[in-house]
Amino acid sequence: MLEGAFAASYGERLLGNDYATQNCSIARALEVVGERWTLLIVRDLLGKPRRFSELERRLAISKNILSDRLEKLARLQIVESSRVDYARDWRKYRLTEKGAALFPVVNALMAWGDAYYAPDGPPVILRHTCGHRAGHRVTCEACGEPLDPRAVQVTAGPGWTLPESDLP
Amino acid sequence: MLEGAFAASYGERLLGNDYATQNCSIARALEVVGERWTLLIVRDLLGKPRRFSELERRLAISKNILSDRLEKLARLQIVESSRVDYARDWRKYRLTEKGAALFPVVNALMAWGDAYYAPDGPPVILRHTCGHRAGHRVTCEACGEPLDPRAVQVTAGPGWTLPESDLP
Repeated sequence: MLEGAFAASYGERLLGNDYATQNCSIARALEVVGERWTLLIVRDLLGKPRRFSELERRLAISKNILSDRLEKLARLQIVESSRVDYARDWRKYRLTEKGAALFPVVNALMAWGDAYYAPDGPPVILRHTCGHRAGHRVTCEACGEPLDPRAVQVTAGPGWTLPESDLP
Repeated sequence: MLEGAFAASYGERLLGNDYATQNCSIARALEVVGERWTLLIVRDLLGKPRRFSELERRLAISKNILSDRLEKLARLQIVESSRVDYARDWRKYRLTEKGAALFPVVNALMAWGDAYYAPDGPPVILRHTCGHRAGHRVTCEACGEPLDPRAVQVTAGPGWTLPESDLP
């Protein structure tokens, strides 16, 4: 869809730089949340804050990896923590506003997984407070119609740094 | 949000098994599309079919990696290809219906990247055929209200294999 020059100084602020030549918000988002386990940690914190040991048990990963991921997520201001037991340095982790803003990503992954990788039916179903099953529809904010890739046109935004002819 | 036993036979059908203990459609989706470059290939094919050389240039990755990813995506029926030049074995790659169904994922990643990693403004803007800028709102299919993580409740679906008390 899009590509281009990616300011070096900007790239350094992110986790890696394999996508560094991509002038693209999708690539930038993946730099941050594309790392293994990261989105599953976000998933587990969407409902409520959790202690380290709880995350460790739920994810069944090593202390090292979990601790590494949580540190990075804290540095990126996606997760924040607070001590719940000073004597034992137990901490509780919760999503920041930036972290909770990943809900549509997690939600879209869930819808796709439900559609193609749930032969026995969806493992879980989200119910909306309206009383119905929460669908995962993506709609245009202006007209409210479902957003279909064939019904959108890609145009240059303020952050586009290449000739218009290079637009996808 | 969710976790649990994941049938071994099912896990083997996916790309890896690091998330194999997760009874979760998000984890299953990430098994398939969480690999580096995969979602950027999907992004580049959302607009139109492209030749190998075109993808190689746009993504600036090695032939090896691109070829490996496209093979996997074809095996997973996310991408399909057809010969456009028999003599030189040139192929064109396009998304299948299952691949195009990843649009909401790509779209949600883009919205989040635009919000937090686009200091100069969004690199690209999607315009809906309704004439307006295409927003990325996720709404409840039943009532049409925006879907907020605090307004959904997680319940067991037909694929849930653990006690209800283990629900997130």
